[in-house]
Amino acid sequence: MRLSQLSHPNELHGLAISELEDVACQIRERHLQVVSTSGGHLGPGLGVVELTIALYQTLDLDVDKVIWDVGHQAYPHKLLTGRYNRFDSLRQQKGVAGYLKRTESKFDHFGAGHASTSISAALGMAIARDRKGEDYKCVAVIGDGALTGGMALEAINHAGHLPKTPLLVVLNDNDMSISPPVGALSTYLNRMRHSPPVQFISDSVQESVKNLPFMGDAIQEEFKSLTGSVRRLAVPSVGAVFEELGFTYMGPVDGHDIAELTRTFNAAHKVGGPVMVHVATTKGKGYPYAEADQVGYHAQSSFDLTTGKSIPSKTPKPPSFSKVFGQTLVKLCEQDSKIVGITAAMAEGTALNLLQKAIPDQYVDVGIAEQHAVTLAGGMACEGIKPVVAIYSTFLQRAYDQLIHDIGIQNLPVTFVLDRAGIVGADGPTHQGQYDISYLRCIPNFTVMAPKDESELQQMLVTCINHNGPSALRIPRGSGEGAALMEEGWESLEIGKAETLEEGENLLIIGYGSMVFPAIRTAAILKEFGVNSTVINARFIRPLDEDTIHEAAKRIGKVVTMEEGTLLGGFGSAVVESFNDNDIFVPTLRIGIPDKLVDHATPQQSKESLGLTPEMMADQIRNKFNFN
Amino acid sequence: MRLSQLSHPNELHGLAISELEDVACQIRERHLQVVSTSGGHLGPGLGVVELTIALYQTLDLDVDKVIWDVGHQAYPHKLLTGRYNRFDSLRQQKGVAGYLKRTESKFDHFGAGHASTSISAALGMAIARDRKGEDYKCVAVIGDGALTGGMALEAINHAGHLPKTPLLVVLNDNDMSISPPVGALSTYLNRMRHSPPVQFISDSVQESVKNLPFMGDAIQEEFKSLTGSVRRLAVPSVGAVFEELGFTYMGPVDGHDIAELTRTFNAAHKVGGPVMVHVATTKGKGYPYAEADQVGYHAQSSFDLTTGKSIPSKTPKPPSFSKVFGQTLVKLCEQDSKIVGITAAMAEGTALNLLQKAIPDQYVDVGIAEQHAVTLAGGMACEGIKPVVAIYSTFLQRAYDQLIHDIGIQNLPVTFVLDRAGIVGADGPTHQGQYDISYLRCIPNFTVMAPKDESELQQMLVTCINHNGPSALRIPRGSGEGAALMEEGWESLEIGKAETLEEGENLLIIGYGSMVFPAIRTAAILKEFGVNSTVINARFIRPLDEDTIHEAAKRIGKVVTMEEGTLLGGFGSAVVESFNDNDIFVPTLRIGIPDKLVDHATPQQSKESLGLTPEMMADQIRNKFNFN
Repeated sequence: MRLSQLSHPNELHGLAISELEDVACQIRERHLQVVSTSGGHLGPGLGVVELTIALYQTLDLDVDKVIWDVGHQAYPHKLLTGRYNRFDSLRQQKGVAGYLKRTESKFDHFGAGHASTSISAALGMAIARDRKGEDYKCVAVIGDGALTGGMALEAINHAGHLPKTPLLVVLNDNDMSISPPVGALSTYLNRMRHSPPVQFISDSVQESVKNLPFMGDAIQEEFKSLTGSVRRLAVPSVGAVFEELGFTYMGPVDGHDIAELTRTFNAAHKVGGPVMVHVATTKGKGYPYAEADQVGYHAQSSFDLTTGKSIPSKTPKPPSFSKVFGQTLVKLCEQDSKIVGITAAMAEGTALNLLQKAIPDQYVDVGIAEQHAVTLAGGMACEGIKPVVAIYSTFLQRAYDQLIHDIGIQNLPVTFVLDRAGIVGADGPTHQGQYDISYLRCIPNFTVMAPKDESELQQMLVTCINHNGPSALRIPRGSGEGAALMEEGWESLEIGKAETLEEGENLLIIGYGSMVFPAIRTAAILKEFGVNSTVINARFIRPLDEDTIHEAAKRIGKVVTMEEGTLLGGFGSAVVESFNDNDIFVPTLRIGIPDKLVDHATPQQSKESLGLTPEMMADQIRNKFNFN
Repeated sequence: MRLSQLSHPNELHGLAISELEDVACQIRERHLQVVSTSGGHLGPGLGVVELTIALYQTLDLDVDKVIWDVGHQAYPHKLLTGRYNRFDSLRQQKGVAGYLKRTESKFDHFGAGHASTSISAALGMAIARDRKGEDYKCVAVIGDGALTGGMALEAINHAGHLPKTPLLVVLNDNDMSISPPVGALSTYLNRMRHSPPVQFISDSVQESVKNLPFMGDAIQEEFKSLTGSVRRLAVPSVGAVFEELGFTYMGPVDGHDIAELTRTFNAAHKVGGPVMVHVATTKGKGYPYAEADQVGYHAQSSFDLTTGKSIPSKTPKPPSFSKVFGQTLVKLCEQDSKIVGITAAMAEGTALNLLQKAIPDQYVDVGIAEQHAVTLAGGMACEGIKPVVAIYSTFLQRAYDQLIHDIGIQNLPVTFVLDRAGIVGADGPTHQGQYDISYLRCIPNFTVMAPKDESELQQMLVTCINHNGPSALRIPRGSGEGAALMEEGWESLEIGKAETLEEGENLLIIGYGSMVFPAIRTAAILKEFGVNSTVINARFIRPLDEDTIHEAAKRIGKVVTMEEGTLLGGFGSAVVESFNDNDIFVPTLRIGIPDKLVDHATPQQSKESLGLTPEMMADQIRNKFNFN
């Protein structure tokens, strides 16, 4: 069986274990080859090769539905479902997506990108199936990290309450989130991983137990599920949490033994009602470097397969905004023991791992639990701690109510650093930091800002921490502008005060955050056409520096706003609201992300497709204002 | 001890049980007297009278901090902490708030209104305390309903992972949410409630167990907490879920036995690390009508104490928007078995209880789990079911990421009905439906609308259900406009098409949803000043009917927008964006909720304080446009 010739995953049915193991090799080979070349998620997929093959052995994928959580562990799934040959386009514009997309394949039953959604979606499908009187299997595959997200627990609570609704939850327990997982559930799972594997109860064993006079009746009365109860009697603590919550628990199963996995999944399909199969996998399995450094190889840019080492970028780049944030926070924490950095399982992505390493005592990782992270910070702030919560723009959506209800309404001094705000590139629509300007702008009591470069980021971080109320700043993905950094002595910026960077009489360009330097570049292009621009760095969107902006707008009469965020209710919208409410009638071109999804591509390609390059913006401006 | 003379809750310390029971009587008396007169939450508070008294017996409230979840069970707390004498101002303008507020009392350590936040906040305070090297107790009191909210489970997962951080979680298990609770956790708690109460382990018993040669060592090795392990050995299944998650579990305790409660809380304080005390309470305890009908007496408008019957309003009112929604949905479900109504523990509030009663098979209550509700609906929509998710505007904030990531990005046909959108009155800032226009407007693929009256609500509900993509409509709290209802034969409205209701040449008023009739009333007032208005019912904010609005705006030249939502990024903002982007320069007065918190009061009082009555709006318009 050559995967390059596989036309349907059902064609794997009936292959011998040795043949399936060969399929596993082919998956790993292709997976490693593509990710080492183009970059992408490595460890998660390598860990579930056998899990995927075995599960698909037991399903009819023309009708059965598998919902993969997050999606970054679904590369083997993609390789088995028609995307093997074009897999080298992974995460590239118009290529195979890095996450799951309903529009990409009929085998991607529910799109994903954020964690913890799969059980809810699979249960919704299972309920729909039963309502329609149909008969197919609904399976959620979720990692142990994602399981701690509140909505996954909400879904387990609901599914466990529906004993007649068949649903299989496969717990892919690699004992890792992106970083080592935190939380009691993880400790619990770990205890189970190291318990003796529990033999699942075959039908015949169930029958024989039923006939044992001394326990048959009691079991039937006391427990809903015979399977569960027998297991619980045998090994009381393994799986008890899930059994108590209404699931039949099976496991732990060796996640790299196709035969055992297949047997277990087949048994699970026979149970009826909610079943959890606990699979112990090794992240990065089969690639020694990845097994040895599971955090480092969670996701990778291109690397040398033989040495495992990253292929350095040809052009050296300035440090990323994230790194500057992380380094600066360490210095601030050194000076003030009341500052605490909080992450929701994204220590590496937010660079809070620098703080974790330097001052572990002032670092908190709550796991994939953004809601809890925000309100926890609120509780700390009540007691005089200065929490700095670093969460990606797209993931902070998970804690929107907490931002309003716990932080904004109570006016608590918590600092939010929204990383990956704006265009994120290869991660695609689920990860674009596209909405935060709009969703933060309407929350009372918040101060909201964005730095133009990494030096201003340092100042803004200090501004937020010193501010006696909730505040948020957003930083983009990737390298900074190469601005000189201060090593110490930062002072708060004046809140609500914009910065005028260039003066010109023909046009006013107001940039916000990551669009300030593009604004300057656009102004330089326009200058070639004889257009002299005033360029303002807005710095704050809440409060907006109305004095500075109004004065310039009235004087100049032509305005452009630039933001890396949705135009609906965003920064340009705030400027236009302010003009309107003050009867300032000046034509204003609002440049930003239009009302659409931004597909995976390089950030540069995305910006080109959205008209956000300086050249394209200059064209739009010339066209709008007849600058010829 | 007369509560009217209690100046500090610590004054209860050292009273005899009989005296404390007398205090309990006084609390119930005052509670019933005030709620029967002014309305408010009844059952939750009556259930925790003894719990509150006993807990406060064991705390020094000058330093220890109790965080009450939701806040509607905190009336006894309020009566013991300085608000007894002015409690008759409950939920009235400038009176005692119906929920918790840090600004109202130094004993309200964390504001609340939404469920499931208390453990996160209390844990944040506990971590802060330990960082500061201080020593006081942090206690969260959470109901069994609220425990199923994802963020509470996230918090438990984190707290259970911190064995050295003392934290007491009191589980107020009244076996109810507002409605009977759903979910496996509730079934589990219920099993525990009916297990024999577990004797908590006193110090001396612990000592003696330690000395038993055959188990002492094994216990120490295998389990972190001696107390927990002994209990687990004795009664394996009681509390196992919480024990496995790192908590020491104590209970169940009779929630109306002050002596037993006091003993248990004192023992809990000695444990160190995270402890859960499981208290079995009766909602409505002490008032027979409320004990007998726990759903009906969860919250009440004024009622006759003797008969328990509601005092009918003197002026009969049209049915509420909620009720019209519920009734119409029942009819639609009768005609189409693919429609399913989904609530997150608010069957009564959203009137989905009508569907539950009429067609239980097309009704789903997921418990307090808004995130799961939304993605569950997404899963159903993938399989051809037509889900209608009814969630209050303020609670849908909890599922913001799911709206974007699971519904919007995937363009799934799910209908959202946002109840209590706009001013909510006595529930105050945590409950105002103030942000939904702004937070929904920026999500791709959504169609967003609001009906002017209950007849249009019926049409819009049909429009949403028939629409092949995500859609949302918002309805206000309270009575409809008295519009005649259709019994059947509803047809979809044209999406994105506004409705011109009145024609006039001096002013254009564009109302959205609940502000359309106020717009007409305002126009009528202005007519007395010789101002003839065109009144447009926008119907849709996404897509906005730009053709109709632009044409009228250009023709008339003076525009007013009216919305019951925040002005930041809201409806008026959308209109102004559209004018700006099309170079239409007309002075536009945006009327809505300004950038502030709206305190508890009657809806009419709130509207007066915000300038949202027709008379006040007419004044603003006359002032803005010099109509004299």
